[in-house]
Amino acid sequence: MRVAAFGGIPEISAGDDLVALIGDAAVAAGLEPRDGDVFVVTSKIVSKAEGRVVAASDREDAITAETVRVVATRAHPGGVTRIVENRQGIVQAAAGVDASNTPEGTVLLLPVDPDASATRLARGLRERFGVLLGVIVSDTLGRPWRQGQIDQAIGAAGVAVLDDLRGSRDSFGQQLVVTQAAIADELASAGDLVKGKASGMPVAVVRGLAHAVVESLDTPARALTRTGPGDMFRLGTDEALAEGRAAGYAEGYEAGLAAGLAAGRAAARGERG
Amino acid sequence: MRVAAFGGIPEISAGDDLVALIGDAAVAAGLEPRDGDVFVVTSKIVSKAEGRVVAASDREDAITAETVRVVATRAHPGGVTRIVENRQGIVQAAAGVDASNTPEGTVLLLPVDPDASATRLARGLRERFGVLLGVIVSDTLGRPWRQGQIDQAIGAAGVAVLDDLRGSRDSFGQQLVVTQAAIADELASAGDLVKGKASGMPVAVVRGLAHAVVESLDTPARALTRTGPGDMFRLGTDEALAEGRAAGYAEGYEAGLAAGLAAGRAAARGERG
Repeated sequence: MRVAAFGGIPEISAGDDLVALIGDAAVAAGLEPRDGDVFVVTSKIVSKAEGRVVAASDREDAITAETVRVVATRAHPGGVTRIVENRQGIVQAAAGVDASNTPEGTVLLLPVDPDASATRLARGLRERFGVLLGVIVSDTLGRPWRQGQIDQAIGAAGVAVLDDLRGSRDSFGQQLVVTQAAIADELASAGDLVKGKASGMPVAVVRGLAHAVVESLDTPARALTRTGPGDMFRLGTDEALAEGRAAGYAEGYEAGLAAGLAAGRAAARGERG
Repeated sequence: MRVAAFGGIPEISAGDDLVALIGDAAVAAGLEPRDGDVFVVTSKIVSKAEGRVVAASDREDAITAETVRVVATRAHPGGVTRIVENRQGIVQAAAGVDASNTPEGTVLLLPVDPDASATRLARGLRERFGVLLGVIVSDTLGRPWRQGQIDQAIGAAGVAVLDDLRGSRDSFGQQLVVTQAAIADELASAGDLVKGKASGMPVAVVRGLAHAVVESLDTPARALTRTGPGDMFRLGTDEALAEGRAAGYAEGYEAGLAAGLAAGRAAARGERG
């Protein structure tokens, strides 16, 4: 497997034709698309092409507007970090709102529908070059329990996002019952290793992983998000402790009050007797 | 960047010389180590070489023994999943105890100290081949909020595990104040894309990322674990709700009881008067 980043993509503005710009830059870099390629595209340039740069005197307001559900908040010297589920169904810090890599006074929102963005890119690049390729739109995510951030897939088209190993057998003939590799996320991470954050190389091509590329463009990265009943971490620990404490206090107060009333009455009658 | 997996490594037993076996297999595969290479080694073969296959009539007992702290549990049709902090400081399901890829009646524990394992491998391979290379020991981890698993670094030596971008500037001259790329984790994921889970290729070489390889072998993956005060998800939501509820109930009961006693006494006195 070869992973190569390439530059030659100009600063992106709303309405720019990313298929043309990425295709041209790939060719100029000697990376003309081939069957089985996966293009890993930094979400920032997708957002910019889609006009998701908005004026924001207050980044916090922009985060609030992109938030569907607050998972956890944490105060720190620079302000308050909010970990939220955003409109894209992704749980991440600051709802994916980015104040870096944009002119001052503006922030960059995530693409409205990164899977649809990936689909348009993949369809366009497939048509232009006549090859079967896949596209990942990647963003940088933090993780509970791990320091640092990694790039993960927030959009995908033409890529088997989960390699379902359930049912296959290990070398001792035992079934691998649980394992499902999140290939799209691993592809996003592999792409990040060569793209870098501030290097002017917003796209990487992964070549030699043709088994991950599929005909269908309907392979959403949304399938990688896990919220709802299966989510064991739908609230931060402090938030859940506080919520539980409040509910428990109300319940305990009611029970204590009833017990106290009875005991108080009995005691007063005892004093009288 | 090129990522290549290779086979030719026999089934590993306790005491096997992994430096020799990996080195021989790399050479046989035409992948003689070079300056700047990173070897991504599946933790399973490290565990086996270190004799971490233990008889376990009950896998659950083995998980308990490896557990330092329970984060969350979840019942499902096949039993109970325990997400715990293990002896290695990693929060993962089942403490990393693996019942696949081992003979029946046995389970595989993680290496006692995966960073030390990585250091021994890196030192040995550096000496044998006279090159500056790094080693990642990788394991498969699940994630909150994301479906599927990805390989991440549980041991590292000679690799810059975190690429500290803090202080660098984006293309608009703004400082990137937060971003720290967890390169070791991204390397583990990139390696997994070519290694696969059941393919008999437990090692991958990442070539062309020389800036991630450092002279020092003291670059522990442990630096990537985040537990303690900075951990916003030290307890699962259900567990924290229950803990908060119990504490709140006790507190509320006490307050209610006091209020009830006073009110009950007053009421009884009122009845008397």
